[in-house]
Amino acid sequence: MKKVAVILSGCGAYDGAEIQEAVLTLLALDRAKAEVTCAAPEIAQKHVINHITGEEMVDEDRSVITEASRITRGNIQSLDTIQSGDFDAIIFVGGFGVAKNLSSYAFDGPDYDIDPEVLDLIHHAHAEGKALGFMCISPVLAARALGEKGVQLTIGNDRETAAALEAKGAKHVDCPVDEAVTDKENRVVTTPAYMLAQSITDAEAGINKLVASVLEMA
Amino acid sequence: MKKVAVILSGCGAYDGAEIQEAVLTLLALDRAKAEVTCAAPEIAQKHVINHITGEEMVDEDRSVITEASRITRGNIQSLDTIQSGDFDAIIFVGGFGVAKNLSSYAFDGPDYDIDPEVLDLIHHAHAEGKALGFMCISPVLAARALGEKGVQLTIGNDRETAAALEAKGAKHVDCPVDEAVTDKENRVVTTPAYMLAQSITDAEAGINKLVASVLEMA
Repeated sequence: MKKVAVILSGCGAYDGAEIQEAVLTLLALDRAKAEVTCAAPEIAQKHVINHITGEEMVDEDRSVITEASRITRGNIQSLDTIQSGDFDAIIFVGGFGVAKNLSSYAFDGPDYDIDPEVLDLIHHAHAEGKALGFMCISPVLAARALGEKGVQLTIGNDRETAAALEAKGAKHVDCPVDEAVTDKENRVVTTPAYMLAQSITDAEAGINKLVASVLEMA
Repeated sequence: MKKVAVILSGCGAYDGAEIQEAVLTLLALDRAKAEVTCAAPEIAQKHVINHITGEEMVDEDRSVITEASRITRGNIQSLDTIQSGDFDAIIFVGGFGVAKNLSSYAFDGPDYDIDPEVLDLIHHAHAEGKALGFMCISPVLAARALGEKGVQLTIGNDRETAAALEAKGAKHVDCPVDEAVTDKENRVVTTPAYMLAQSITDAEAGINKLVASVLEMA
């Protein structure tokens, strides 16, 4: 039984983890009989977005891990208790939470940095030869952590984001929504998910391929 | 193309819609190429639960429709704008939000009542011969609305809940998590989902059967 950590950045596409991507990832992993541990950082969300209007709810303060636990029915670990050595693979779900809570990409663009705990986790996992999966916008994390390794990855076909990842040293490859890109040398799999998906079945196709490739390498 | 309304009661198993059930329902409907409209009432959540600790977050006030829109990436309608005549079928997702926000079952037990808008919607849909699906705890809504029709349904095998539904006139049938119960006369399909599911694939099996049966009758 493969042990997989799934990293979430809140609960909702516009300020946290993309919920549909998270559930599709959990579904694919459970079908493959992987043993899953979900984790999220114990930090405040950068902000809270009303998902109907797109506007910030300025009086709201929410915790990334507490909101993320809604997706997992309460089963979640603090990111700082997760050690890559305890897992065969780590998968990062997308959503603006990655660009806002796990990194500063949404605010700083190409000059972004990523959460030090996330950076450490990816560095350790890579050094130990673990398989790593990143979907949607979360390849920004891989580019920052593994850009100097020339990691090959995709965020779909958005030129501006691709350029930002390449500025970190990553090699961007255009990829359709129903495919995934595998960098065998760095053991990194990426798929566009809701960077390109027009429907939940669009997203599912690429996520299923990412999970299959990650488990194959794990 | 079948038109289906999916009714949500918030965002999170313990105070809103069960997120995994909601996403699995949307996935099954999209695979079947149904045209989906999600809806939720514009009302305040009865309370907000920290899903890690299970405790109430007493200073939080959240809106059922605003939180539900996180699951649907912002695409959601107010329940009071939904007319059963515009749809071939209506599916109610589970989660404690059904027992707390759409009904008073969590607080009143067998003496519960349900939201008048929800009651009207089910009554109209039933009168028009539409197909209706209810998963997890949401058969409490069907029992209240269609108990006098002797509606046959399941919430799995919980004796206390089954007795409460039977007190409304419904006929409860025990059902395993990977099956669904169809009342052809009343055009009502029910499945236990997370009333019994131990995993997301458990829940998926029954939800897929519910969606297939609803679409078949729609």
